Amino acid sequence: MNVAKKLGFNENTKLLIIHADDAGLSHSENMATTQCLEVGIVNSYSIMVSCPWFYEMAIYAKDHPEFDYGVHLTLTCEWENYKFGPVLPASEVPSLVDQNGHFYKKRDQLSANATAEDVKKELKAQIDKALKFGLKPTHLDSHMFSIGASPEFFQVYRELGKEYALPVMIGEQLMEMVGLNAKDNLHQKDLIIAKAHYGIWEYFESGSLKDYYTQVFDNLVSGLNIILIHPAFDDPEMKGITLNHPNFGSKWRQIDFESFTNIEIEAKIKENNIELITWNDIRKIYYDG
Amino acid sequence: MNVAKKLGFNENTKLLIIHADDAGLSHSENMATTQCLEVGIVNSYSIMVSCPWFYEMAIYAKDHPEFDYGVHLTLTCEWENYKFGPVLPASEVPSLVDQNGHFYKKRDQLSANATAEDVKKELKAQIDKALKFGLKPTHLDSHMFSIGASPEFFQVYRELGKEYALPVMIGEQLMEMVGLNAKDNLHQKDLIIAKAHYGIWEYFESGSLKDYYTQVFDNLVSGLNIILIHPAFDDPEMKGITLNHPNFGSKWRQIDFESFTNIEIEAKIKENNIELITWNDIRKIYYDG
Repeated sequence: MNVAKKLGFNENTKLLIIHADDAGLSHSENMATTQCLEVGIVNSYSIMVSCPWFYEMAIYAKDHPEFDYGVHLTLTCEWENYKFGPVLPASEVPSLVDQNGHFYKKRDQLSANATAEDVKKELKAQIDKALKFGLKPTHLDSHMFSIGASPEFFQVYRELGKEYALPVMIGEQLMEMVGLNAKDNLHQKDLIIAKAHYGIWEYFESGSLKDYYTQVFDNLVSGLNIILIHPAFDDPEMKGITLNHPNFGSKWRQIDFESFTNIEIEAKIKENNIELITWNDIRKIYYDG
Repeated sequence: MNVAKKLGFNENTKLLIIHADDAGLSHSENMATTQCLEVGIVNSYSIMVSCPWFYEMAIYAKDHPEFDYGVHLTLTCEWENYKFGPVLPASEVPSLVDQNGHFYKKRDQLSANATAEDVKKELKAQIDKALKFGLKPTHLDSHMFSIGASPEFFQVYRELGKEYALPVMIGEQLMEMVGLNAKDNLHQKDLIIAKAHYGIWEYFESGSLKDYYTQVFDNLVSGLNIILIHPAFDDPEMKGITLNHPNFGSKWRQIDFESFTNIEIEAKIKENNIELITWNDIRKIYYDG
């Protein structure tokens, strides 16, 4: 299916979603995300239901139906001192948690311990909690691409999309993680990203992450592109959360915030004949017709 | 029992514990609390096991056995957008939670809904979680004095002290809340506070909270006094937590932090012949034989 054509564009159009991950993680993340939506060029985001600041973000989402949001399905918690775990009692999904009832830090710990059954139970509970709260998510995506930790988990992810009639975010990297050839699998209903773009450690380390984001707009491909960012502030809360974790740390997130609230980057969209679309546009094509 | 005498002081000595409540609530609270312990005159604190930043504070407590700490038993969450609930699954203590699985905001909602059985189950789970984590608490106290929401809950509190062999923080205000005459009940083993001193709204509102804290040292009584403070910073995280709640809000907590890291106030202790003691000193008298 050609998404561009379905949406009324020329079939070679460069479509783009600018997406903020990790809403709900912290107050800092929530405040930066809402500013990126309101005064920046972010046009979609996703919420971590299992995080301490979920409630604040969920209230905002309900109060702002004009902004596109999904559920950021969460199976891992990468931070050193800031911990969260499943929305289900740990005793109901014992394979997902460490001895303290928290999610594992790394994907390989998840794949070594977790059963696909527990993964499915917990992820359904996260979506159900969002729905019960009155949220109307437009898509599903995966925190840290943890859903790619095993082919079985990836299968769960696809099933959840069908069961909840929501598009799932799947790109080349995620498919390669589970040993699937992206080229041969990108035309199914649940596989729609031509290219996912996100900050890369080497650019951050060399001080050129902001430049990288500017250049991304000049290098989009035909079809659906997505830029994944993690806006937050380099403030005490985020420094505490991202302690000893500069990769996607608080400084990185401050750059994400600044880059996508910058009017110069906004001009890049017109210059490059990019069409901004949302997950809800895709959801309608796939599931409302 | 005369605590002063048991500790080797003259029986009319003014004993004092300077205690920080609410550790574990947030990163801001944790950072301010540890600074009050390390460079200020706070000499005891208590940890909220059910809060998002428990883990960070618990690691600190284990790494710093030189500081006295207890479990800040929690049954209510007073904040508008920042929510937490029981450490047990909500389904196991249904009378303690609202429709979202969070603690009620107010004591009267708690007394209207909660059963003493659920209160006991949850508070035991909070203490057990701390113990399982390797913590060695010296005392129990009650967040928002919620344990005073009914005489039955208050009875649970006393029972927990006996069961875990830990002194419980009980003063006049808490006893009056449950209809007990403090004078006639203050000499039992679990009732040891001659006077609890804490910030008062009128002083905060008129800008004189810091002066109030200075004067408190001139007005201590014979026996065991306790000063209860809530140090944190007036930073974005705490502003977000204490939104629309200036009573014990982020500005208040910043004053608490500044007041008790101020060397002028330290001099007041010597001037007034005050003896600083800890909950562990009391625990030893009561429970170590």
